[in-house]
Amino acid sequence: MRDFSADHRWLSINTATVRAQWPLDRIVDECARRGIRAISPWRDQVAAVGLEAIAQRIRAAGLALSGYCRGGMFPAVDAAGRQRALDDNRRAVDEAKTLNAACLVLVVGGLPGALAGTPRHKDIAAARQDVRDGIAATLEYARQAGMPLAIEPLHPMYAADRACVNTLEQALDLCDALDPSASGALGVAVDLYHVWWDPKLQSQIARAGKARLLAFHVCDWLVPTRDLLNDRGMMGDGVIDIPRIRGWVEDAGFAGYSEVEIFSSENWWKREGGEVLDTCIERHRSAT
Amino acid sequence: MRDFSADHRWLSINTATVRAQWPLDRIVDECARRGIRAISPWRDQVAAVGLEAIAQRIRAAGLALSGYCRGGMFPAVDAAGRQRALDDNRRAVDEAKTLNAACLVLVVGGLPGALAGTPRHKDIAAARQDVRDGIAATLEYARQAGMPLAIEPLHPMYAADRACVNTLEQALDLCDALDPSASGALGVAVDLYHVWWDPKLQSQIARAGKARLLAFHVCDWLVPTRDLLNDRGMMGDGVIDIPRIRGWVEDAGFAGYSEVEIFSSENWWKREGGEVLDTCIERHRSAT
Repeated sequence: MRDFSADHRWLSINTATVRAQWPLDRIVDECARRGIRAISPWRDQVAAVGLEAIAQRIRAAGLALSGYCRGGMFPAVDAAGRQRALDDNRRAVDEAKTLNAACLVLVVGGLPGALAGTPRHKDIAAARQDVRDGIAATLEYARQAGMPLAIEPLHPMYAADRACVNTLEQALDLCDALDPSASGALGVAVDLYHVWWDPKLQSQIARAGKARLLAFHVCDWLVPTRDLLNDRGMMGDGVIDIPRIRGWVEDAGFAGYSEVEIFSSENWWKREGGEVLDTCIERHRSAT
Repeated sequence: MRDFSADHRWLSINTATVRAQWPLDRIVDECARRGIRAISPWRDQVAAVGLEAIAQRIRAAGLALSGYCRGGMFPAVDAAGRQRALDDNRRAVDEAKTLNAACLVLVVGGLPGALAGTPRHKDIAAARQDVRDGIAATLEYARQAGMPLAIEPLHPMYAADRACVNTLEQALDLCDALDPSASGALGVAVDLYHVWWDPKLQSQIARAGKARLLAFHVCDWLVPTRDLLNDRGMMGDGVIDIPRIRGWVEDAGFAGYSEVEIFSSENWWKREGGEVLDTCIERHRSAT
C-alpha cells in the first residue's frame, strides 16, 4: 500500500469540493500552485468557462484529469427522452476526450423525473433496464473514442433520484454483462461515501480488480449526517476507515489518484477555498 | 396475493406512527375502535404506561401484536458493554412474551457510541461481529422463551449509528449461520423503507421464505427526502411500488400483518392522531 504521508502526489481534487468558492479556471490555478497534480471537473463548471479555454488552461498547468463528471442519467419515460440522454452522453464523452480525462464517470440516474421532484413512475426495475441499455449504447461510442466509462454506484439513499445502481456488486454485474472481456472500456468509480457500509465491499473490490477499478473517491461519513446530499465530511472527520479500504483497492491493483470529493453546503463550501484545498492536502496525508 | 381493498383485517399499526400524539393506552383504544386488529408497540411507550397495565389493556381490546420494538443495539467497546446489551435484550424478550408479541424486532446497532454522536471506533466489521455474537447469545434465551427474533435490515444510511445489518441478504446470512435449520426462532423483519432500493430484493425475499419472514413493514420513500430519520411517507405518497413487493413476500409464503410504521416529524406527527389512523386504513386499502 502506498505511503501517502510524505507528499500529495496521488491527490486529485474533484472540483465540486470548491465549486461554491471559485470558477474552474481559478480552481485549476489554485490546485497547480499547491502541487496538486490532478483534478476531476464537472461539466457545468467546464461549460461556464468554455471547453477549449479550460482544456488549454489545464494543459498549461500540467494537470491530469482523474475523471470527468459526469455522464449517465439514462432513464426516461419514452424513446425521445432516452435518445436525448444518449446524445448528451456522447457529448460528455467528446468533452472528456478533449480534456484528456482518465474516464467519464457515470451517475446513471434513478426514476425519471425524480430529481426534479416529480417521479414519473415507480418501476425501478424499468429504470435499471434503461440504465443497462443506455450504458450499452454509450459504450460503443466511448470505445471508439478511447474513453473508458466508470459506473459509479451511488449510496442507496439516492436510488430514487440520482442513481439506481447502488452497490459495487450491481455495478460489476453490469460491467460483466456489457464488457465480458474486461477490455478496459468499462469499469467502476469507487466512492467511499457511497459504498463504505457494504458488507460485501471487500470481496467486490477484489472481484473488480485492476481492470475495472477506474477511479477512487474519498470523503467521510459524518455522524450525525444532517442532509442527504450536501453534508459530506472531510477525511478524518467521520467514521469511514479510509486507509483500510484503500488497502483493499490497492491490493486489487489500483494505483491511481485518490480523488477528494466533498459536497458540504454548511461547512466546507462556506470556508475560504485555499483553506479547503490546504485541508484536503493535509488530510490526504494524515487520514487516508 | 391477498386483496386488501375491501377491509383492513391485515393492517397493523406500529405505534411510533402516532407516538407524538398519544400515549400507548390511548393508541390501543383508538386502534381497537377502528377495527384495527394488531399493533406493534415500542418499549419506551410500554414503559411509560406500565408493562402489566398495557398488557391487560391490549388483551381486553383483543389486539394482536405483529411485533415488539425493539431489541438489538449489541455493539459495545468492552465486555461490560456487551453484557449490558445482552441483559437488556433478555428483558426485551421477557416483555415481548408478556405482551404476547409475534416476534421481537432487532435493530442490531451500529458503531458503539455513534447514536449518541460520539463513535468510539470505525471498525464496522468489529461491530458486525458484536452483532453476530449478541444475536447468538440472545437466541438461546429467546428460544427457551418461545419468542422469535426478527432481524431488521436497516437502510445503509443508518449503518453508522443504528444498524450495521443493511441488506436482506446480510440478515439472511446471519439467520443461516445462527439457525441453520430455519426452526422459526430466527428470521427477518422486512421494512420496505429500508430495502426497497435493493437490486437483490426479489431474490432474497424468495430465499427467506415463509420460515424467515416474521414481519412486514410499510411506509413510503418521499422524493425529496428532507431528513434521514423522520421524513418517511404515507403509503402512496412516495416511490416504493408496495403492491409489487408485497406480491413477492406473499409468493414466498408470508400471510401476516402489513405493519404501518411512519416517522414523520414535519407532517404526520403534527396531525391529529385520528386523521393519521384513518389515513393509514385508507391507504392500506388503496395503496399497498
